[in-house]
Amino acid sequence: MKPKITLKDIARELEVSISTVSKALKNSEEISRDTKEKVQAFAKLYNYKPNNIAISLKNKRTKNIGVVIPAIVHHFFTTVIRGIEKYANAKGYNVIVCLSEESFDREVINMEMLANGSIDGFIMSLSSETQLKGDYNHLKEVTEQGIPLVLVDRVTNEVECDKVIIDDELGAYVATKKLIEQGRKKIALITTDDYLSVSKARTEGYKKALLESKMDIDESRILKLSTMEMDEQGIQDFFKNNDVDAVLCVNEIFTVYSMRLVQNKGLNIPEDISFIGFTDGLLSQYANPSLTVIAQHGEKMGEISAQMLIDKVESEDEEETFQTKILEPTLVVRESTIN
Amino acid sequence: MKPKITLKDIARELEVSISTVSKALKNSEEISRDTKEKVQAFAKLYNYKPNNIAISLKNKRTKNIGVVIPAIVHHFFTTVIRGIEKYANAKGYNVIVCLSEESFDREVINMEMLANGSIDGFIMSLSSETQLKGDYNHLKEVTEQGIPLVLVDRVTNEVECDKVIIDDELGAYVATKKLIEQGRKKIALITTDDYLSVSKARTEGYKKALLESKMDIDESRILKLSTMEMDEQGIQDFFKNNDVDAVLCVNEIFTVYSMRLVQNKGLNIPEDISFIGFTDGLLSQYANPSLTVIAQHGEKMGEISAQMLIDKVESEDEEETFQTKILEPTLVVRESTIN
Repeated sequence: MKPKITLKDIARELEVSISTVSKALKNSEEISRDTKEKVQAFAKLYNYKPNNIAISLKNKRTKNIGVVIPAIVHHFFTTVIRGIEKYANAKGYNVIVCLSEESFDREVINMEMLANGSIDGFIMSLSSETQLKGDYNHLKEVTEQGIPLVLVDRVTNEVECDKVIIDDELGAYVATKKLIEQGRKKIALITTDDYLSVSKARTEGYKKALLESKMDIDESRILKLSTMEMDEQGIQDFFKNNDVDAVLCVNEIFTVYSMRLVQNKGLNIPEDISFIGFTDGLLSQYANPSLTVIAQHGEKMGEISAQMLIDKVESEDEEETFQTKILEPTLVVRESTIN
Repeated sequence: MKPKITLKDIARELEVSISTVSKALKNSEEISRDTKEKVQAFAKLYNYKPNNIAISLKNKRTKNIGVVIPAIVHHFFTTVIRGIEKYANAKGYNVIVCLSEESFDREVINMEMLANGSIDGFIMSLSSETQLKGDYNHLKEVTEQGIPLVLVDRVTNEVECDKVIIDDELGAYVATKKLIEQGRKKIALITTDDYLSVSKARTEGYKKALLESKMDIDESRILKLSTMEMDEQGIQDFFKNNDVDAVLCVNEIFTVYSMRLVQNKGLNIPEDISFIGFTDGLLSQYANPSLTVIAQHGEKMGEISAQMLIDKVESEDEEETFQTKILEPTLVVRESTIN
């Protein structure tokens, strides 16, 4: 068998990005005619097949599930993996995990590798760079070939497939309401830029709660960091320039770091300032004070996505129907808010 | 091609454990003659090949590295993975991660799956169950076939291969010394049973430091939990029954949980009681007070193990020599000890 050529190989050979190759093969208008012709000619010459066409995948079950997620530094994703493993292992499936590390290129490379006949289907959560680029051709490629795909948590409307999400808007709404009910007047939001689907929804929920209570939305109280990665300087500057009495953070790392900052300034939590975070992880449980959080039920999300995927893999049904399951988040009250 | 039969299939078919099949095929004395004959006959009948003999692996590079680790709930292992990815990606290799979830069976199943031609070599950290059983046949199988293997952190002397470890005895010794120098007299150790290689070494380091300072070793001050998983009740009982003025814990989760317990009893850290943990993760950095720790340099360990593996994969050298790299841990002093 001749060696297979991948998107990555073409990109390297022609000295363009993987995204460009992917778009050029799809005849995207974003790419110049010259580049498109070059890429397409090269692909033809080397007999490129999208995702190496996991040949006759339907007939040859591997009993492996490929999981591609952005990062494992966040407790949330580790619980999603745990849930996937729990359900999949019980059904006799193995789970292979690849990390995109929030990179579009790594996401594509990992998918190409796994789609090469190693797995029966994908469970994925999009990298932040993929959501920023808005380039989902590598996902469409997979679904068009009939490889089952379930998107979990970070999803897109651009790809038709099964999805499992949590109602992030509701989560932020409930959290903000809680802070308002406790008499907080200056409620901050520490989140990321809106290109991240979950952050956008959470910002909407936060604003909705404020508007409902006839409170002004003060944009200076909303800190939008560029990624979910820790940005100590960004958060320090925010607290230097803002006088707030409550903070909602989109992950637990931002929350515990912020709490340490205000504690070092001599403030008491929750007397002077309240905190609510997203994700009910170890940091939240063992922080001092322990964190009031919006629990995202990652393990449950993982289990459901594994179930949806395995159902698709084992289904004899030729007709394609897709579902989106929306879970409700739960407010878990601990010491970082007034009881 | 005929479907390949795996250890797991044989175990299921004959209703014995995977470990039994593995030992029977190795003609182990631990297994009854009857069982051995059955297993061997079955394996012959179905043409079983160990690890599906990753055929001509030497000639067909996949540029994939298989990583099998016990768990990702501990920050340490996530940093090891990060280090592996960093080095491997820079060298053009992809990383596939499988979790054993501390289970021997899952470790074997994952290895069988990956050894099936998907990867060029393994980086592994042993599951606690594997270390408890002391059954390393699945690793020997891999090395005997010439598939490069690097063991990292949780290793065994029973398998000849490259290894990357941290000097755990030294780490515990340095930490205990620090506590002694600060005038602590009743120093506790919260660890796991000795079958876990790292716990055994740390217990030795702790005892060595006490003996050197002519302090008695009081076994009642050593809590040996059954696994690295959280055991809240075990730790609660320990603090109920023991009056100590310093605690060394083998991971950061045990440490932050213990700190919360004594804080709730009204003790001040570090005035009344000091804490040192292993692993310099997010929990350690953002705990209140922040944790003095023995940093294990997980990222560095990951990078080195990836380098050792890729060197082996790409080496033309037929002669097999193995190295063990031992890193030195570092004491990072923060607020949970007196400065």
